[in-house]
Amino acid sequence: MRSLNYDVVVVGGGHAGCEAALASARMNKKTLLITMSIDRIGQMSCNPAIGGTAKGHLVKEIDALGGEMGAAIDKTGIQFRVLNKSKGPAIWSSRAQADMDLYRSYMRKTLEDTPNLDILQDTVASLIIDNNAVVGVNTSLDQSVHSSCVILTTGTFLNGLIHIGERRITAGRAGEPASIELAQALKDYGFQVGRMKTGTTPRLDARSIDFSKLERQDSDPDFVPFSMRTKEMNQKLVPCYITHTNEKTHEVIRSHMHLSPLYSGIITGIGPRYCPSIEDKVVKFPERISHQIFIEPEGYQTHEIYPNGISTSLPIHVQEAFLKTIAGFENVIIMKPGYAIEYDYVQPTELHPTLETKKIANLYFAGQLNGTTGYEEAAAQGLIAGINAALKADGKAPFILSRSESYIGVLIDDLTTLGTNEPYRMFTSRAENRLKLREDNADARLSEYGKKLGLINEEIYVEFKDRIQKMESERARIKGIWLNPTPELNAKLTSFQLPEVSNNVTLEAYLKRPETNIRNLRESGLISNYDLRILRCLEIEVKYDGYIKREETLSDKLKTFDHVWIPKEFNYAKVSGLSREVVEKLKRHNPSTLGQASRISGITPAAVTLLHTMIDRERVIKKTKETTIEHSL
Amino acid sequence: MRSLNYDVVVVGGGHAGCEAALASARMNKKTLLITMSIDRIGQMSCNPAIGGTAKGHLVKEIDALGGEMGAAIDKTGIQFRVLNKSKGPAIWSSRAQADMDLYRSYMRKTLEDTPNLDILQDTVASLIIDNNAVVGVNTSLDQSVHSSCVILTTGTFLNGLIHIGERRITAGRAGEPASIELAQALKDYGFQVGRMKTGTTPRLDARSIDFSKLERQDSDPDFVPFSMRTKEMNQKLVPCYITHTNEKTHEVIRSHMHLSPLYSGIITGIGPRYCPSIEDKVVKFPERISHQIFIEPEGYQTHEIYPNGISTSLPIHVQEAFLKTIAGFENVIIMKPGYAIEYDYVQPTELHPTLETKKIANLYFAGQLNGTTGYEEAAAQGLIAGINAALKADGKAPFILSRSESYIGVLIDDLTTLGTNEPYRMFTSRAENRLKLREDNADARLSEYGKKLGLINEEIYVEFKDRIQKMESERARIKGIWLNPTPELNAKLTSFQLPEVSNNVTLEAYLKRPETNIRNLRESGLISNYDLRILRCLEIEVKYDGYIKREETLSDKLKTFDHVWIPKEFNYAKVSGLSREVVEKLKRHNPSTLGQASRISGITPAAVTLLHTMIDRERVIKKTKETTIEHSL
Repeated sequence: MRSLNYDVVVVGGGHAGCEAALASARMNKKTLLITMSIDRIGQMSCNPAIGGTAKGHLVKEIDALGGEMGAAIDKTGIQFRVLNKSKGPAIWSSRAQADMDLYRSYMRKTLEDTPNLDILQDTVASLIIDNNAVVGVNTSLDQSVHSSCVILTTGTFLNGLIHIGERRITAGRAGEPASIELAQALKDYGFQVGRMKTGTTPRLDARSIDFSKLERQDSDPDFVPFSMRTKEMNQKLVPCYITHTNEKTHEVIRSHMHLSPLYSGIITGIGPRYCPSIEDKVVKFPERISHQIFIEPEGYQTHEIYPNGISTSLPIHVQEAFLKTIAGFENVIIMKPGYAIEYDYVQPTELHPTLETKKIANLYFAGQLNGTTGYEEAAAQGLIAGINAALKADGKAPFILSRSESYIGVLIDDLTTLGTNEPYRMFTSRAENRLKLREDNADARLSEYGKKLGLINEEIYVEFKDRIQKMESERARIKGIWLNPTPELNAKLTSFQLPEVSNNVTLEAYLKRPETNIRNLRESGLISNYDLRILRCLEIEVKYDGYIKREETLSDKLKTFDHVWIPKEFNYAKVSGLSREVVEKLKRHNPSTLGQASRISGITPAAVTLLHTMIDRERVIKKTKETTIEHSL
Repeated sequence: MRSLNYDVVVVGGGHAGCEAALASARMNKKTLLITMSIDRIGQMSCNPAIGGTAKGHLVKEIDALGGEMGAAIDKTGIQFRVLNKSKGPAIWSSRAQADMDLYRSYMRKTLEDTPNLDILQDTVASLIIDNNAVVGVNTSLDQSVHSSCVILTTGTFLNGLIHIGERRITAGRAGEPASIELAQALKDYGFQVGRMKTGTTPRLDARSIDFSKLERQDSDPDFVPFSMRTKEMNQKLVPCYITHTNEKTHEVIRSHMHLSPLYSGIITGIGPRYCPSIEDKVVKFPERISHQIFIEPEGYQTHEIYPNGISTSLPIHVQEAFLKTIAGFENVIIMKPGYAIEYDYVQPTELHPTLETKKIANLYFAGQLNGTTGYEEAAAQGLIAGINAALKADGKAPFILSRSESYIGVLIDDLTTLGTNEPYRMFTSRAENRLKLREDNADARLSEYGKKLGLINEEIYVEFKDRIQKMESERARIKGIWLNPTPELNAKLTSFQLPEVSNNVTLEAYLKRPETNIRNLRESGLISNYDLRILRCLEIEVKYDGYIKREETLSDKLKTFDHVWIPKEFNYAKVSGLSREVVEKLKRHNPSTLGQASRISGITPAAVTLLHTMIDRERVIKKTKETTIEHSL
């Protein structure tokens, strides 16, 4: 038996494990990351992208706190876009395609270069527990590592079971062994272990795809990097493409549904609602004659393509058959078959909001182990677990973000308060304060914490403070500048594609107008020549000032919903406008009050408003019948 | 069941599989490479180096025939040296350190970019056999691939079993599953399956090594690239380092020998004689107080270090204990433990010299499956198997290289004629014609074949012909140039660090002198301004002309050794000058004639000469006693 000593042990080298280990080591804790394969550290197991709706927000929050994911994708991205640009700024979300190999390599190098952080290839078999507190881990190769805290980030490896058609393969990922002993150990410790599943698509050879039949999608110009640390991005950019399934595709899938382990009853784990397999889409949305497929290149060096949107566990002959019905895929060559994978997770209500388990002190869980899906959700939890483990090792107070200041707070509160029975992913609709929780102000919301925790260095912090100071002084300045409707001014505005003024207005009021654009104002010289990171935030704060204030009021109002009782026999299905998902969740959770309903994962503010209206109406109809008081908390 | 059709199927994506697949596809056969992990194609499982004694020769031969290994290492190498420069030019051998990640990535990209070549991730479970001929393979994921020929390159995956101390893990490589079904299938088909083992060292964190205590070794200037295709190499170069074990190290190992699966009887497979584990070295050479450790960096991006020379299957706590006794390793951090791995191989006497099996037509084996060790040996076999499978698929005559024209010929003749019971590696001493089989003339020996097979393109071929033409005309030219001992000439020679002449000599005769150097002659203008690829070859051909001719005579003489009978009770151990290895092998094989003895793998020409002398002496002593004729063939 070899015996080692560290302050913090992180088990797993995926997106959660990397952030956890980096945070702990950067907070000067002697940290050991144990992984089954050092060569796979930072591997993107699923599609080659970071960010997207609400996920972009998480990445920017991770960055603001001093995490690594944002810097990693800025460096290794091959396409950058802002999603939802036609909608409000709260949901503008950055998304990037990654070169998977470069991303992996960048993350591994970052870990290797980090002082206080060692990496060991081995498999953790059990925990060493003393007096209901973890004090280390034992490995398969007869090593015991003693530590103040342990963070588990097991991803899909705990009792991992791959399904392709009727074939079942014990594996943590294609071609890698599952973690069996540790899975049993967690059950033995009494954790409430459940089963989830996720899936990947077949990977295709780009040489066999007819791109002339596909819609091309390029990077956005003027993309603001994910990370405060990124000064410039000048890598070569590559396009993605879009194609669609059609009725023939669906017919092939329907006629082979009996061969899908999802529908033959073999798979018992629950899959991600928002990233369903193509079998699920065909069954659950029979009215849809087409589903989009987003064609993602996996990197500069490979022809391997990730056709996002058609994850499947059908046998490979069916995969090929349905692929060949799709425009552009008529002669497609499959490089890797798609597959589903089932794995163990622990009900996250077993966790404190620090991500420490309630059963075993000093033991932290992060990532898919907590029932989430997504690289960004994993990384966010890894960061928080790493920070709290480092603080605990030092005997310091924990670090908990609130729902009202961060998506990370929403994520962890949702998980630890409500638990989850299906893979949880982040959405902007999960946040009560989404106009406040924007990507552009993630640094303003969180960088002070990053600095206090020692995760943001002085240089980055000084730059951040400078941005805040510039934005505030510019905002004050434009309040005091009056635009007078002179012909000279209007001529100048027109020449910069800006609307004319007809009354005396402040520059701030002028900026509020939907048609004014801060970049053009900067070019005209009316707005100071600051960079887009500052000006985009300023523009949004000014333009949406009213909405932001209203959201704050609403947020206060939401707090009163705990006093609005829901009638016991309330028929959610009758409320038109509620989605199938919302109705299903309300029925399952059977909340007592509107406040409880509003906090159920996936219940949107819009749904709450609708419910509120209907509850009021019912109350009016039933007049004085006090049915609601029969309801117990 | 999905059914696919190809001309040639290659199973495995290691060094053998890559060359086999590339050769077949470049010969216009529709080729499918099936691998358990596309992300590991071209992986260096052991140390990060290509080439070395006799192995450099193999790489240059592979290149001359149109293979890829030479170009790959030229592109991804991080240090280049010529070994044995103080010895004769026959054994000058090129060796390079690789960036493992770049090498893997280069090889994968090369395969992906090759027309006619598809790649599929799956595990081959069995062969489809019809009338004693293979007609395809079946995979674990219910795919059947029909083909004219199948090439198996299973490496260490067939029934792979990792040993670390008393732990045994079924695996093909650390963190990857073994191939179990196919192993059973090969036994069922009646192949003579044996067991071999190989080992790797623990991988160390460079940050924990004190390099100030180590000897540094840098690249050689003026290194001639491995590949004819390489025009220039200007990558950043990095140093290697050297340290040594000591008596303390050996003491730690000796005192824990009972924990080594090698010595406790758990490992039954035979390991590589020339790359023994540190346990073997300590036991078999008790007189040695120190063994060299060559410290190889694994790439630009990683701190991972391969300490070559201390492969081990001792438990990890013993690995750590003995490492820490070594200068520079006092505070070493282990990233990956060293391990031994046992795997199935097939006795290569089951093969024709085309590498097609005798039992099942159209089935080819290459690499460790045939009982060899080494990336270069694997690649050479892969190339020959790929070429022959492509020829067979076309109904063309096979391609067999002779011993007298190539190391590849020696390798395959040794394997298929004599078989092997231990991992076979190439040595210059295995070749009868080693002055002819040099690195510098590999192109002259083999490129015509490469061209005829369609593996070398017109541009490279034209450049090759140009080099040959230049060398021949220069050789003819220098025969006719007379150097007269004038003061002017001698002054000029002296100024170029060249010896003076005292008689009239031809420039060819002058070049023969050991002190003349062709680079200086080129600078003086006496030799044409050709590049070093041409001039080094010319210089050797001229300087060693006498030896080369003598070798040819000896080679003819060797053929007469089949008529020199070895006395039945001949005591090999009494022949002073024979190594332990040679004696052991002669005893085991018990050859009837000196000719047979000379062809036993590992019996050097020097040993044969020694034996010949002793046999003659014994014959003289025993005078007319005709003991030898009792010996039967």
